[in-house]
Parts: sequence; structure tokens; C-alpha cells
Amino acid sequence: MSEPVRSAVRGWDPEDPRHAAVAWGRMAEPGDLAAATLVADRGHVAALRWVLGGAGGNLEPPCEPWDPRVWHRARERWAPRLEVVRPERELAVVERLGGTVLTRQDPRWPRALADLGLGEPHCLWVRGDPDLPRRCRSGGVAIVGARASTAYGAHVASEFAAGVVAAGGVVVSGGAYGIDAVAHQAALARGGDTLAVMAGGLDRLYPAGNAELLDRVTREGAVVAELGPGSSPTRARFLTRNRLIAALAAACVVVEAGWRSGTLSTAGHAARLLRPVGAVPGPVTSAASAGCHRLLRDQAAICVTDVPEVMSLVESADATRPEAREQVSVSTVEPGAPQGDQVGPPPGLAARELAVWEALPARGSATPDALIRASGLAPREVNAALGRLELGGHLERDGARLRRSRRPRRSSAHGPVVD
Amino acid sequence: MSEPVRSAVRGWDPEDPRHAAVAWGRMAEPGDLAAATLVADRGHVAALRWVLGGAGGNLEPPCEPWDPRVWHRARERWAPRLEVVRPERELAVVERLGGTVLTRQDPRWPRALADLGLGEPHCLWVRGDPDLPRRCRSGGVAIVGARASTAYGAHVASEFAAGVVAAGGVVVSGGAYGIDAVAHQAALARGGDTLAVMAGGLDRLYPAGNAELLDRVTREGAVVAELGPGSSPTRARFLTRNRLIAALAAACVVVEAGWRSGTLSTAGHAARLLRPVGAVPGPVTSAASAGCHRLLRDQAAICVTDVPEVMSLVESADATRPEAREQVSVSTVEPGAPQGDQVGPPPGLAARELAVWEALPARGSATPDALIRASGLAPREVNAALGRLELGGHLERDGARLRRSRRPRRSSAHGPVVD
Repeated sequence: MSEPVRSAVRGWDPEDPRHAAVAWGRMAEPGDLAAATLVADRGHVAALRWVLGGAGGNLEPPCEPWDPRVWHRARERWAPRLEVVRPERELAVVERLGGTVLTRQDPRWPRALADLGLGEPHCLWVRGDPDLPRRCRSGGVAIVGARASTAYGAHVASEFAAGVVAAGGVVVSGGAYGIDAVAHQAALARGGDTLAVMAGGLDRLYPAGNAELLDRVTREGAVVAELGPGSSPTRARFLTRNRLIAALAAACVVVEAGWRSGTLSTAGHAARLLRPVGAVPGPVTSAASAGCHRLLRDQAAICVTDVPEVMSLVESADATRPEAREQVSVSTVEPGAPQGDQVGPPPGLAARELAVWEALPARGSATPDALIRASGLAPREVNAALGRLELGGHLERDGARLRRSRRPRRSSAHGPVVD
Repeated sequence: MSEPVRSAVRGWDPEDPRHAAVAWGRMAEPGDLAAATLVADRGHVAALRWVLGGAGGNLEPPCEPWDPRVWHRARERWAPRLEVVRPERELAVVERLGGTVLTRQDPRWPRALADLGLGEPHCLWVRGDPDLPRRCRSGGVAIVGARASTAYGAHVASEFAAGVVAAGGVVVSGGAYGIDAVAHQAALARGGDTLAVMAGGLDRLYPAGNAELLDRVTREGAVVAELGPGSSPTRARFLTRNRLIAALAAACVVVEAGWRSGTLSTAGHAARLLRPVGAVPGPVTSAASAGCHRLLRDQAAICVTDVPEVMSLVESADATRPEAREQVSVSTVEPGAPQGDQVGPPPGLAARELAVWEALPARGSATPDALIRASGLAPREVNAALGRLELGGHLERDGARLRRSRRPRRSSAHGPVVD
């Protein structure tokens, strides 16, 4: 792992604001508060200049009030990724797919994302209508819910999505199986606008089973992501992705969600962003509604049962962009985000162990360097996590390479996951 | 209609506190604020003495701050009923049925009823365990809901009632078809305590279709009413009865209720009495849950989905008797209370017209005097209402007698009534 130096920059211009923003998007994992703080203080170009500025650990800390060691560790974390940053290549990949990247200077940049404070993404990749993300803020409704939806939930999601587009609004969702897919589909079926927010890069739309639907969304609506092409949708990224769904839309409606569903994090983000949150009640006998009832019980959501009630959420949303009153921390790794049909991670992992475990490929092996780049953690953090994972029997060494343990752990101390 | 005089008192003792309380229960319709005010000021015996005190309209107003005309009208209203008051006969009827009457001096009087302020009943007729009403206040749960319940609602009501009695609590309900019946049944099936609060007298348990169940409740729990034997359960009385259900229990849970269900009045009374209110969510596609969702949406109820959540309502209830902080007005006649399988009243009637219409027998005819006694209104109020009902085509004259119009009005300007 070399110190970051200008020689790491090959074939792109760190003084180009667009390149610099894309580079930050690649270097800093969503929720990297050091990166966010530095960028907020100086902008993408100057922040990058600081990272590239000198060899050794003798740099002045760039801004108050953090301990200089924080910045040192952050540079250690960013350096391995900086070596592989190629903004011009990422742009070329997405442009070939008919897409583009928006930066904060772009007039099409969704100003609503500024409500995220330090959680505002560095850039936004878009396939489809690049103006659609901006248009969600007035009249857009996030319709989200469990992958393990029921026929009841699908019915309600479909009705609500149809109602939102009939009122001229945009249906925002996460492109997942279940409620998300139904919401996108219903919007498209009525010729309405819909926006899918991905947890990974736009070159490989996830989940693969929704490829046809998501392709159609790129043609008739838009698919967006904060991470560049090639980024894989890890568990942590699903949860940080949820803040974008919450921020882009004027209001958020949870149609069905299990008690521990990752969907609840979207509702939590929306509430912190002062977006009205609705929850759809369902039978108390349905585990797929337990999360909705939890929101209602905690008075974290308003009970919504039909389209007029959904639209009244939108009306109650502040139509003008509110000041970002709260910073949203997105660095916490919570359990429960969907992971396709992969075997889930072992229970009880700490955040960094989980990030490293997620960075390991589902099949095959990886080098420690690859894991450092993929996880966005500093080398010694990765090494410490690898040691603990190995001790716990969760990974195996294959010469210099590492792979997930071949004993799949299907039973989980977390209990059954509903969705 | 004679002036009330001592000669009206035949075969009972107006100076006997129990007789006097029973007499007031007969003379004053539930929610008669003049009666409540007079009794609160003087007690039942002295209040009755005032009514019997003199001929003519020259009596001093008994208490501030009302206009003397209010008292004059009240005496006019009470006098026709005073003529037919026979406390000793009422007691005999109920004692033959194994029952008794509780007055406010009785140690078994449920102190919780004092929370009703001026709405506190004058007496409480009981068949079954006369100590049960008092015992509801700690751990008792009102489990109420629509007559037009679904299998889902019945399932939930049964589970909740079983849980309440398993925790040693009393299941309080209204003895109606649907949710009420299921709640009583489930409590009995587990050998638990249950209390049914009737809108009419205890000599004819209503509805007739639940006679077997209610008989069993009189043997293994208790059935109570504030109105003496022979009193019929009119629409207005269902709504005033609901305040007793709310006051007796520590908490109130609405399992299923239509959008305009009379059950919502029970929840409203409970909230005003500072009793925790829970509502059970259900499918948004089920009209039987629309009232519950309305309560949740208005944040008038907490979402409850299982027995522990029901019991946490009870725990949050103040275990000690709270001071009656609010007077509960029960004089408003609201639409929507169940009426068995009779044809409902014409829509759009004012409160007095409705009371008179209700006083008319479903089949056959009645004299104006009988209507005055049955409705509890003053003669000229009854005459005015009769005139308006006749103009509206809602009643027909049959010589000196009156009957409901033979054109049943099944369609209602109020829209479909769900339960």
C-alpha cells in the first residue's frame, strides 16, 4: 500500500470537478464522514488535492475539530482505492449504457440530497432521464417494502403507485423483488414516472431477476446509484442506499415490512429528513406487516389506507426545500438488508468484520489487497477483521488468497428473517 | 301531564336513598345534565325532594348557574316518568332474576364511574357477581368492535380476550353480536371473568340471539345496566351505554369497526376518560377495519397486534383511580349505533326527533303520553318532534295513536353502514 501521490493519477484530471467528484465517490464508502467533512470544507477538487498533497504522515489536518490521527487513518483508507480510480473509464462505461453522472454543480442535481448533510452523495450516476431525480422532490413518493411481500401487499403497492403517477408524481423505490418491483411496474403500466435507486453500480442492475423491469425503468424512467460501475451491492450499501430513496422523494410509504426489515431504515431516514412517513396496516396475523405495525405503534408513521391518504402525505410535505436540520449518520451497519439468494453473513459480526466478509466473493477467493479496496477499510483494519473472521471459522486461507468458509451457516442467532 | 307531587309516590319511599337513586335512574335519561347537576349538588334524596316539593312553576332554581327555565323544563320532563316510577317493583323484578342494584353508597359501587363526572349513572343494575364491575378497573380490558365482524376480527378478539383473562383481568364488552360476543365467549371458555354492559334493562337481555351467551355471563360473570328493567335499548342508549364500558375498564381495545361504527364512540369516551385506547390494524381492503385505521390515523389509538401489546396498555393505565379531570357529555346523539335487525331510522333527524322516532314501537302504535315517558322528553318537545316527523313522512297517525311510517327507508343519505 503506497502513500497517495500524484503518480497514482493516471489518465484523468484531479483538477476537473467532475473527475474529482467521481473519484471521491469511488474512494469513500457511502457514510465515510471524514471524506464528507473534508469535501464539505473544501469541495471535491481541493479535498482531493489534500489527499494527493504530500508523502509521509506529516500533513496538516485539513479541518477542525478532529484528531490528526483521524485524517491519517482516512488517508490510509482512501489510498488503496485511489490507485484504481479511473473516472474517465467509469464515465465511458455508463455513457455506453446511455447514462451519465451528475455532480453537485449540475443544474439537474437533486437539491433534496443536500438535506442529507454530510450524507450527501459525491455524485449520482443516472441511466434514463437525468432530470427525474430532481423532479421527485415535489410529488414523488417512495413506495417501499419487503421482498417477501404478500398478494395483499402487492395489491396495495400497485394501487398506491398507480395513484401517485395519476397525480403526476414519481414513484421512487429500490428495484428489489416484492413491493419495490410491483411499485415500479404499476407506475410504468400507467405510463407514469418511476425512479429506481440501486445499491451497486449501474452496469449490473440488481437483482438480476428484475433485469427486464429495471431495463424498462432505464428507458421510461430512471435508475440511479451513488456508486460507480463495478460496485457490488453489499449489505451495508443497501442500508446507505435507503437514505437516497428517503431524501429524493417528498414522502415515504412502507407497504409491507417484517419486524426487522431493512425497509424500516428507509422510513427512519425519511423521518430524520422530515419527510412524512406512511405505513400500511395489514392483518396482525401477517408477519409481512409486523414492521408497518411497529412504525404505527411507535408513531413513527401515519396510517395510510388509500391513495388520497398517500397524497395527503405529499401535501403535508414541505414543497420548498427545507434546510437540512439534521445530519444523517449512515455509517452504522444494521442487520436485515436483502442479499439476493446468497447465504447470509454469519451472525454477530462487528461492522468491520461484516464489511470484509461482504467484500469476499460469494464463490472463489480474493487477495488481501483486493479486500482492502473492496471494503474501503484501512489495511490494518482489514487485517484485524480477517484475523477475527478466521478465528471464528468464517473464512479459509488458500495460500495467499482468502475465501468464505465452505460450511454455510444457514441457521442464524438472529432468528428467522422475515424478508 | 300533572305537576309532580307527593301523591305520585305510591308504594315506595322517596327518602330511602336506594329508592331515590333508582327513581332518578328511571326519571332521567342517561346524559340528562340537569338531573346530574341537581343530584351532584344535593344527592339523590334531596334532589328528589326538590322535584316533589311543590306545585306550580314557582320553585326556586335549585342550583347555579343555569337559567330557571332549564329547571322548569327539566321538571316537565321528569314528571311524566315520576308517575310510573316503582323502585320496589323494579328491585323485585331484578331480584327474581338473581340480580340487585348498586348505588353510589354501596361499597361495591365501581368508583371508576366517578371519572364520568356528571355522566356517572344514578345506579347500576347487576345480574351475576356484584363485585365484578368494581374489579374491572385494574386489569380489565374493554374488547369492543363491530357486529359485522370478519373471521379475522373474531380470531383476534378471541386471542386478546383469552390473554386478558389469562393475566387475571376482566373482559368488558357490550354483549352484541360479532366482536363483543366472541370476546365474552373466549373469556368464559377459559374460565375467566367477563362483564357485559347492556343498553336496556336486565329483564330482557339484548340481543335475543345472544340470550344463551348472556345468560351464561350472568352465571359466571356479570351483566350490568344503568337502566331499570323494562327499559328498551334504543339507539341513543347504546351510545350512552358505551361510556360505561369505557369507564369501567382500565383500557379499551377496538378490534374491528367500520368507518362510522358506534364502537368508535366507546374509544372516544375511553380517550376522554384518559383510559389507554388500542386499535387492531387489519387489511386496508377490509371495511370492517376502516374505523380502527381511522383511530390509528388520528392518533386516537395505539396500534395493538398481540396480547403483550394489549397488556402494555393496561400497564400504562393509571392503576390508581385518576381524578375525573373532564366531564363527559353524553347528551349528544351520534349516528351509527347498532339496532338489531330493525329498519334504521330515517337519515338526517335531529336528536329529539330521533329520540321520539326510537320511542315509537317497531310494529304497532303508541299514544303521545307513552312516547313522552319512553323518550324522556318534555311534552312540548315530543309534540314538536312529532310534528316534524309527520311533515317528513316518517310517521302516521292512527286516530289518537302514532306509528312509524309504513314506507321503510332502507336507503340512507349517510351512505352504506358497514356495521
